[in-house]
Amino acid sequence: MKASGKVLLAHGGGGRLSRELIRELFLKRFGNPILDVLDDAAVLPDSLPKGYRLAFTTDSYVVQPLFFPGGDIGKLAVSGTVNDLAMMGARPLYLSAGFIIEEGFPFKKLEQVVDSMARTAQEAGVQIVAGDTKVVNKGSADGLFINTAGVGLIPPGVKLGGALARPGDVVIVSGPVGDHGIAVMMQREGLQFSSELRSDCAPLNGLVEAILKASKEVHCLRDPTRGGLAAVLNEIASQSNVGIEAEEEAIPIREEVKAVCEFLGLDPLYVACEGRLVAVVTPQAAEPVLEAMRRHPYGREACIIGRVVDEHLGKVVMRTLIGSRRILDMPAGEQLPRIC
Amino acid sequence: MKASGKVLLAHGGGGRLSRELIRELFLKRFGNPILDVLDDAAVLPDSLPKGYRLAFTTDSYVVQPLFFPGGDIGKLAVSGTVNDLAMMGARPLYLSAGFIIEEGFPFKKLEQVVDSMARTAQEAGVQIVAGDTKVVNKGSADGLFINTAGVGLIPPGVKLGGALARPGDVVIVSGPVGDHGIAVMMQREGLQFSSELRSDCAPLNGLVEAILKASKEVHCLRDPTRGGLAAVLNEIASQSNVGIEAEEEAIPIREEVKAVCEFLGLDPLYVACEGRLVAVVTPQAAEPVLEAMRRHPYGREACIIGRVVDEHLGKVVMRTLIGSRRILDMPAGEQLPRIC
Repeated sequence: MKASGKVLLAHGGGGRLSRELIRELFLKRFGNPILDVLDDAAVLPDSLPKGYRLAFTTDSYVVQPLFFPGGDIGKLAVSGTVNDLAMMGARPLYLSAGFIIEEGFPFKKLEQVVDSMARTAQEAGVQIVAGDTKVVNKGSADGLFINTAGVGLIPPGVKLGGALARPGDVVIVSGPVGDHGIAVMMQREGLQFSSELRSDCAPLNGLVEAILKASKEVHCLRDPTRGGLAAVLNEIASQSNVGIEAEEEAIPIREEVKAVCEFLGLDPLYVACEGRLVAVVTPQAAEPVLEAMRRHPYGREACIIGRVVDEHLGKVVMRTLIGSRRILDMPAGEQLPRIC
Repeated sequence: MKASGKVLLAHGGGGRLSRELIRELFLKRFGNPILDVLDDAAVLPDSLPKGYRLAFTTDSYVVQPLFFPGGDIGKLAVSGTVNDLAMMGARPLYLSAGFIIEEGFPFKKLEQVVDSMARTAQEAGVQIVAGDTKVVNKGSADGLFINTAGVGLIPPGVKLGGALARPGDVVIVSGPVGDHGIAVMMQREGLQFSSELRSDCAPLNGLVEAILKASKEVHCLRDPTRGGLAAVLNEIASQSNVGIEAEEEAIPIREEVKAVCEFLGLDPLYVACEGRLVAVVTPQAAEPVLEAMRRHPYGREACIIGRVVDEHLGKVVMRTLIGSRRILDMPAGEQLPRIC
């Protein structure tokens, strides 16, 4: 392993070198009693608690470059799956991690990524209990891809979903949008507009816990990743068959993000976040939820951006201060490929 | 989607084209009430049954070529994860599927793969309830990679594991070894030794159910994938801290596989299977388990190949009819890269 400093095809072969990779690299960082058994599947130690339901999700990560201001593919891979579970009101518990590594990939970088995954998992309070490593020939992958899947438990009584928004509900966003996509893109293109812009990438399960503690009248939580805020608002409008009206000026966007977007002809409302969430709550819940969010490190800049209406069903309409209105469409394709 | 017949970067962008891909390609084939909701995580409908434990596993698939005699990457991706759950005695229930697709990949091939996944899932009685699609630029991946993760439930009282083999136990294999690896390799290299050899790739949860019904004295089940039979026997010997003695002549290997291995200088004991299992059971359980296996379509050629001993702990020893003995080592690296 140390001899060459690079990952070899044999590290994915299921033999001694695979075992060495697993023990030296992964178990040292992810190790826990469930993972350490190294059987074909992780067996969770306890019987399942009564009345809970299981949430299950997966995402693959192909972000380029692998390291960017505010995060890396490892932090992203853990946060993303933790967040998908949290958005359903589940307490994320267990993650799997599948690595596809290009032959010749430096061990040092792999260690950095795995360290970052371990740190993020610890922050989120989840355990990585199952894994897999494949190595493909040089040129057959772009360095490193990671898949994570996750399971979590939804407590009795918690019911969230994109189809549950109701007219009158208030739409809250937990912080400025577009930071992640623009930070990754600037790193990739070597742009130096600002030295301060960082990805918002973070595990949001703590923030979600605070929200659900503040009110029982939360209808829908969703994190605006690919497709950005525009995609999430459109999904909710479509799934719930409601209209959404957003105040253009109320949507928090950092000045640096605005400037870069203007320069490159991008719309920040379509740029991915990886540590923000949209909450749709009853009008009564808006204040307590907003307060709870603002007390949490990942929700300090939370604000109300719009409301759910009984018109233009399935569509999102943006209003400006001077009263003009425009439809905020579902994005067609991809403004920024490989941002997650 | 149909216009170009090829997957575009935009199909992974989280916008309208992503939705189209999900609805037209995936939901049409995998659709079920849990997946169709399309929220951030799948929520399993029922409360979890009391006394059961959860099994959770993942594998990525990078097999090359994607289609081979007896299977394809889709059949492999579903079978492999179903099998990992089954080897722990779990009833596989729910799978996730993460696709990493190279830009320009033909839709027709993707449809074939997804059809194959749907068929295999149906055979295994599992539902695909969560998914993700990423598209990377041309040249950044080799056509198609698939990750599957799976959850299953282990009934009360079932306890299997690589560490549970005991001296005196009997070692059974469910059929000839090496078919999968050799079938894939011949397809890849364009070799035409035999027109009959097919991958053994199959979901084994039905076979495992039959085994566990036949006897409660099953200690360990494992499927010999990467590293082949040799790796699995070594893993069990090491995890259980026992010796394993195998009869060289008792191990079933097809004549075609032997011939190809001889020609290419490969050892069939190190070649991957994707539809075989090794069972370690008490001597009393051997007959009923063997009978149950032989009555099942995927276990017709099952036979006893060795036993667990209290000597040469952690090692596997092969005996021949003429009485010679040799240590069957853990494979070091990779005889045949990318066979799964």
